Amino acid sequence: MKKRYLLAPGPTPVPESALLAMAQPIIHHRTPQFSEVFKETAELLRYVFQTKQDVLMLAASGTGAMEGSITNLFSPGDEVIVINGGKFGERWGKISEAYGLKAHWITVEWGKAIDPAIVKKALDENPLIKAVLVQASETSTCVAHPVKELAALTKDRDCLLIVDGITGVGVFDLPMDDWGIDVLVSGSQKAFMLPPGLAFVALSEKAWKFQETAKCPRFYFDYKKERKNLKDNTSAYTPAVSLITGLREALLMIKNDGLQNVFARHDRLARATRAAATALGLKLLAPDAPSNAATGVFMPEGVDGGKLVKYLRDEMGVTMAGGQDHLKGKVLRVAHLGYVDTFDTIIAISAIEMALNKFGYKAQFGKGVAAAQQILMEGYK
Amino acid sequence: MKKRYLLAPGPTPVPESALLAMAQPIIHHRTPQFSEVFKETAELLRYVFQTKQDVLMLAASGTGAMEGSITNLFSPGDEVIVINGGKFGERWGKISEAYGLKAHWITVEWGKAIDPAIVKKALDENPLIKAVLVQASETSTCVAHPVKELAALTKDRDCLLIVDGITGVGVFDLPMDDWGIDVLVSGSQKAFMLPPGLAFVALSEKAWKFQETAKCPRFYFDYKKERKNLKDNTSAYTPAVSLITGLREALLMIKNDGLQNVFARHDRLARATRAAATALGLKLLAPDAPSNAATGVFMPEGVDGGKLVKYLRDEMGVTMAGGQDHLKGKVLRVAHLGYVDTFDTIIAISAIEMALNKFGYKAQFGKGVAAAQQILMEGYK
Repeated sequence: MKKRYLLAPGPTPVPESALLAMAQPIIHHRTPQFSEVFKETAELLRYVFQTKQDVLMLAASGTGAMEGSITNLFSPGDEVIVINGGKFGERWGKISEAYGLKAHWITVEWGKAIDPAIVKKALDENPLIKAVLVQASETSTCVAHPVKELAALTKDRDCLLIVDGITGVGVFDLPMDDWGIDVLVSGSQKAFMLPPGLAFVALSEKAWKFQETAKCPRFYFDYKKERKNLKDNTSAYTPAVSLITGLREALLMIKNDGLQNVFARHDRLARATRAAATALGLKLLAPDAPSNAATGVFMPEGVDGGKLVKYLRDEMGVTMAGGQDHLKGKVLRVAHLGYVDTFDTIIAISAIEMALNKFGYKAQFGKGVAAAQQILMEGYK
Repeated sequence: MKKRYLLAPGPTPVPESALLAMAQPIIHHRTPQFSEVFKETAELLRYVFQTKQDVLMLAASGTGAMEGSITNLFSPGDEVIVINGGKFGERWGKISEAYGLKAHWITVEWGKAIDPAIVKKALDENPLIKAVLVQASETSTCVAHPVKELAALTKDRDCLLIVDGITGVGVFDLPMDDWGIDVLVSGSQKAFMLPPGLAFVALSEKAWKFQETAKCPRFYFDYKKERKNLKDNTSAYTPAVSLITGLREALLMIKNDGLQNVFARHDRLARATRAAATALGLKLLAPDAPSNAATGVFMPEGVDGGKLVKYLRDEMGVTMAGGQDHLKGKVLRVAHLGYVDTFDTIIAISAIEMALNKFGYKAQFGKGVAAAQQILMEGYK
């Protein structure tokens, strides 16, 4: 008997109501019955995206909507700024280059957020730039980039701000319309508390104008076609029926809790985890601009993070994430997003305390937990 | 969004494999398909009961099998010893008297175990006594009675030892055949990790002899009839098909873990909880003879246990049990039995620490957790 706990930054745990909804017999997608589900879900997505625009639902991983957001809006030769401060920032650049765009890479040290002044300078110097591509939350480094400030830079230019909000939307405040985000992408297996399989994307009016002249080749990810179908409460190609049925339940949970309360919960869990790490003498991966989606901590000298993650998962049943690329073996990432609450956070911290001791680092039992409890108390009357 | 955790001494959490098995379409009970399930389950039950005897499966709560163990073995006027050290000890007496037996009540202070010398004296003084009725684990007081010592007393007399093992079987060692337990009762919603609805009972050959002359009225709980049906891999009346289907999965989990490892886990969780309570300055309800099924702790002066239990459940999502009868409002009971492991125990302790602080008792954050972690570490390589 090994109980398993999922505390990686996606996939995240799925609540029972969504699991049960998805376990229902499949209904046909071209029926009034499914159109009703689709319509209600699309409306709830607008609430979570904080937009009046349509939010397209694609049967794909988040990366599909990242690709679609390039192919539907640009033409080969178009110039874009890629903010590359981690694995997913890099992905924006790779997609752009795969379609013949000219990427201006701005490299950011892993663990740091982009300085908007650098982007401003690049935009000022090159008026041909058609987009700034960034992550709201760079999952590989647990950093939150300053989306609001970046949106202020692109707003009055002929340039789009395209935001990968895969671990951002529903985690912390990203009011798309208010801030002037032009493209906002997300995925089901994050704050949406669903299994992987759905990507979401919303476009501003300004972005839809770009779509009219974009010449990159595309077929499955055809935003114009999806938008047209969405108006008829359906999708261009076969929708992932059971995932969307589950999505409605998950979105209703978010709606019932209230988006601001959901953000506050993520913030509380993230602050508690950061306080715990600090109490245990562990250095944070992103001390200056931490994302509330996940917290990265450096392993102490002599502790192999890869082995620790494996031990936590295989021996203790607690799945967290390790580091990627040059951070492999050096960091541990604990997620806070989605169907995660006080006791998941306590599980993560107590498990880390215990595992570190098994690996020879004398973490004081209960010290991280205590630091977290102090903050987690805010969640209760 | 409120995540819920079940840490009461029954019902206990149901593992996913059992939930999924129970979610399968119902099969008819008079079919070779179900007989196969029934047969395998009956065999696995023998393993958990540590007996060569048949273990009857009744569609009933544990109390049904307590009643059946009186009506199938005795006649009105028969004399029995009732060891009354809690709510469930008292129940043995009430059932006996409902059927006209003469109950010799031996009262034990709540929180204490029976002294076998007292039982020996009563048996020596009254050779007419036909049974000693006791709990292996008295759930209301979290006490483990000395079953092995009691069995040694009844073994060579014309007297049965009848044990309510509802929160004992599968929790700690109760080798029925080895010790000479004559009747052993249990229920599905405890160490068997199932929803409520099934009672189990096994009888020694000596007990089956009593059955031949017993004259108490009975119909639904007819052990002879059930035993006969069990030989044909079925039950006398309609069996609870889905519960038995789930039971097979749960028993397979126990078998795969190994009974001694399951006992060791319960022992570890119970010791961790007792250490945590002591570290937090809380007095144990049963310090001398604690049951590994659940740990009872007295509330500190000024803390209303009833309100605390309600707060833990309704505000924090953690369901534990309060006190019964004269212990109402005075104690909190944390369960360890069934599908419960390290992090359930940490959840319980950290929640108690936080709730006590909300109620004005200055429990030091992390102190109980740390004491528990020290012991819970034993569970990992």
